[in-house]
Amino acid sequence: MENLNPIQTSSRSELRQLVRTQLQILLEQGNLEGVKALLVPVQPVDIAEAIEGLPESQQVIAFRLLNKAEAIDVYEHLDSSVQQALIQKFKHQEVLDIVDKMSPDDRARLFDELPAKVVTRLLGQLSPKERETTALLLGYEESTAGRIMTPEYISLKENLTVTETLDRLRRLANASEVIYYLYVTDAQRHLTGIVSLRDLVVSSPNKILDEIMTRDFICVHTDTDQEEVGRLIQRYDLLALPVVDREQRLVGIVTIDDVLDILEQEATEDIYALGGLQADRDNYFQTNLVTVARRRVVWLLVLLLTNTVTATIISSQEDLLQQMAILAAFIPLLTGTGGNVGAQSSTVVIRGLNTEELKDLGTGKVIFREAVAGIMLGTILAIMVTIWAYWLQGNFSVALSVGISLIAIAFLASVAGSSLPFLFCSFGLDPALMSAPFITTAVDVLGVLIYFQIARTILGL
Amino acid sequence: MENLNPIQTSSRSELRQLVRTQLQILLEQGNLEGVKALLVPVQPVDIAEAIEGLPESQQVIAFRLLNKAEAIDVYEHLDSSVQQALIQKFKHQEVLDIVDKMSPDDRARLFDELPAKVVTRLLGQLSPKERETTALLLGYEESTAGRIMTPEYISLKENLTVTETLDRLRRLANASEVIYYLYVTDAQRHLTGIVSLRDLVVSSPNKILDEIMTRDFICVHTDTDQEEVGRLIQRYDLLALPVVDREQRLVGIVTIDDVLDILEQEATEDIYALGGLQADRDNYFQTNLVTVARRRVVWLLVLLLTNTVTATIISSQEDLLQQMAILAAFIPLLTGTGGNVGAQSSTVVIRGLNTEELKDLGTGKVIFREAVAGIMLGTILAIMVTIWAYWLQGNFSVALSVGISLIAIAFLASVAGSSLPFLFCSFGLDPALMSAPFITTAVDVLGVLIYFQIARTILGL
Repeated sequence: MENLNPIQTSSRSELRQLVRTQLQILLEQGNLEGVKALLVPVQPVDIAEAIEGLPESQQVIAFRLLNKAEAIDVYEHLDSSVQQALIQKFKHQEVLDIVDKMSPDDRARLFDELPAKVVTRLLGQLSPKERETTALLLGYEESTAGRIMTPEYISLKENLTVTETLDRLRRLANASEVIYYLYVTDAQRHLTGIVSLRDLVVSSPNKILDEIMTRDFICVHTDTDQEEVGRLIQRYDLLALPVVDREQRLVGIVTIDDVLDILEQEATEDIYALGGLQADRDNYFQTNLVTVARRRVVWLLVLLLTNTVTATIISSQEDLLQQMAILAAFIPLLTGTGGNVGAQSSTVVIRGLNTEELKDLGTGKVIFREAVAGIMLGTILAIMVTIWAYWLQGNFSVALSVGISLIAIAFLASVAGSSLPFLFCSFGLDPALMSAPFITTAVDVLGVLIYFQIARTILGL
Repeated sequence: MENLNPIQTSSRSELRQLVRTQLQILLEQGNLEGVKALLVPVQPVDIAEAIEGLPESQQVIAFRLLNKAEAIDVYEHLDSSVQQALIQKFKHQEVLDIVDKMSPDDRARLFDELPAKVVTRLLGQLSPKERETTALLLGYEESTAGRIMTPEYISLKENLTVTETLDRLRRLANASEVIYYLYVTDAQRHLTGIVSLRDLVVSSPNKILDEIMTRDFICVHTDTDQEEVGRLIQRYDLLALPVVDREQRLVGIVTIDDVLDILEQEATEDIYALGGLQADRDNYFQTNLVTVARRRVVWLLVLLLTNTVTATIISSQEDLLQQMAILAAFIPLLTGTGGNVGAQSSTVVIRGLNTEELKDLGTGKVIFREAVAGIMLGTILAIMVTIWAYWLQGNFSVALSVGISLIAIAFLASVAGSSLPFLFCSFGLDPALMSAPFITTAVDVLGVLIYFQIARTILGL
């Protein structure tokens, strides 16, 4: 009986694998009872993954075999592209059944992706209560606390006793996503305190909430950025954070499980920006190639523009290159190494700014440190490169020009790599925009200018 | 009375700012009572941050003004370098008081950083129970579930009733980090089920745990990788995950607040690898410059080695460049664009592998998609570059050589950028090692080879 044994990591991922392959085989055989039996012990998130792996025609069939309660759980875990595909294929009543019972934050996320026409129609058919909460969430800007919060929290009055509260919890628990914090509000729905389930359980039964609640709590506004919300939950080790509107009335809570996903999404955005790509909420590997090309080409064109400047500079030095063609051999080495040094500096500064590790250090101090590191690294590399360049082509003046240029370029690259993210940040732009590809390309331009100037001076040409 | 108002985000960060500056001023004035009063309403994590910002000589003074219980909380939140500095300055008894009361996972983390001699001495002086738990945690490998778990969980027998359990909770709550899950074990300490505090609160009081516990739970081994632990908690929306030893006995739990930090740390490692840096657990901006240079120079040298190959290839084409020096002008543009295209491909593949977004797609399909995208992007860019290169220097054969090379390079860069991370992954290496700087440098070598070959063919030289 697999239910009697704890399912461990390794067997858990084997189980996921097994469910995925078995599901498709059973569906192809038309063995629908087999599918039902297969899915009974499987977690909703794993069922969702297995369904995503099926051919489109089988997705609806598999989904319809789930019982109603489970269907909603599974649907919430599906990728938004699969959610959309399914909703087009469902019968009218099926759609309503699912959408009406989804948790409000997941529903708002789905509606974001659906065509406006479909949303309007669905909104009109929701139960009045669900319609109101969804419209409320959709009214907030994307990536704000208002948009990611759930209005399903438990709020209570401060004069309830511990026992009364526990009794009430027993009835309310199913209607709320999280019951680990209870929110105490006054007559105007202003949040006045928070009681954790832990406080409640360890307090003597006849105390009232007013005596045990925490009044010194942290809350956010509906328009607080979701990344800020994530950082607060992380910093203060919270399980949920209350969200208040402009009149300080409690309107929802953001829970830690959503925060995990948000912080991961923000990290992906940062990483994509570092690679010179635009991130959006769709899975890169599931968007079509034209969209992929569109997301990538803009940045490549911007970078290309800078590259043409480099090429123009080099072509303007054609006379020098005609006299000393070997100089060309070291151009990629110099620009490449400069780019790498600059990429390192910009990477640490960008990550530092985004995780707030950098908050205490002054801008000047960080740039100075990077500049010193750049000179140190440049010198080490320059010594090796000079020796090697002399060995390669036998002209010491050329080798020396390469070495000196490398130190200058490493210094400049560190300064550019560390200062440009700060500059972007101070303009209110995402520092990750000033990422490795941009630093690399910018350093190219400076690098060839410096190199030719130094070579001309040393070679006397 | 600030205690009566919820403290909101913006005022929260202002408050942090204020505490930091005020703390230093009061310490300089020697107003120790003022410091005590200042810190009363401040959260431990914020006090820790304020102390980190102080000059070293003031850190000990500020720390000693905290009451005992708070001191431990604050100490746990300090950066490991500050923890170490403080421990050297404390009197013997102070050290023992703090270290003995720290939570075992935080203590193990501190011991990791301290010199072995200090650790041995401290271990010998801990209370026997604390010594045992610490030695246990230190026995597990770094970055495993065993190392990050806390042994402070609540385990109960299955025949307890809900009421009995709640009574017991009231007494046990303070000894445990997390009480939101209770673990049911048999006589051999094998984990047989989990009861959430939610289940407990909503169940009728005379049921026994055996009736309400979940038997189909997820658990991990002590040697499971911490990133895997994080992914499981994220995937299944858990607040904590039980850890069992080889004999399937419950030995600890990993909690979601630690997972947030782990996932952030893993994201930083990935981002650093993408920028061509080694990450370690110290804050980059607080390590000294020699260490910084050491962490960066290794990768720069490896990249430099590849760059010398590029330079050797170009220098071997000196005859061609002497006849047609203008060809050199387009080398950085071609290698740069190739590098950018390759960086995009490797970034999405590496992130996809690390977040498991990619698990369902076959390797072949991903590389094929990237190859097609590379050709599409290469063609768009090549058309623009050919026109521009012709305009710049008037030789159509040269311009055409540049354009055709660009398509070939973009194709190759996409294939290299998408396939090398898979290759690294299949050897059990971190795919992030095959990051943008490496792809860029590898593409340089291939790029110049292709360019010279195509130029020779088209120009007939």
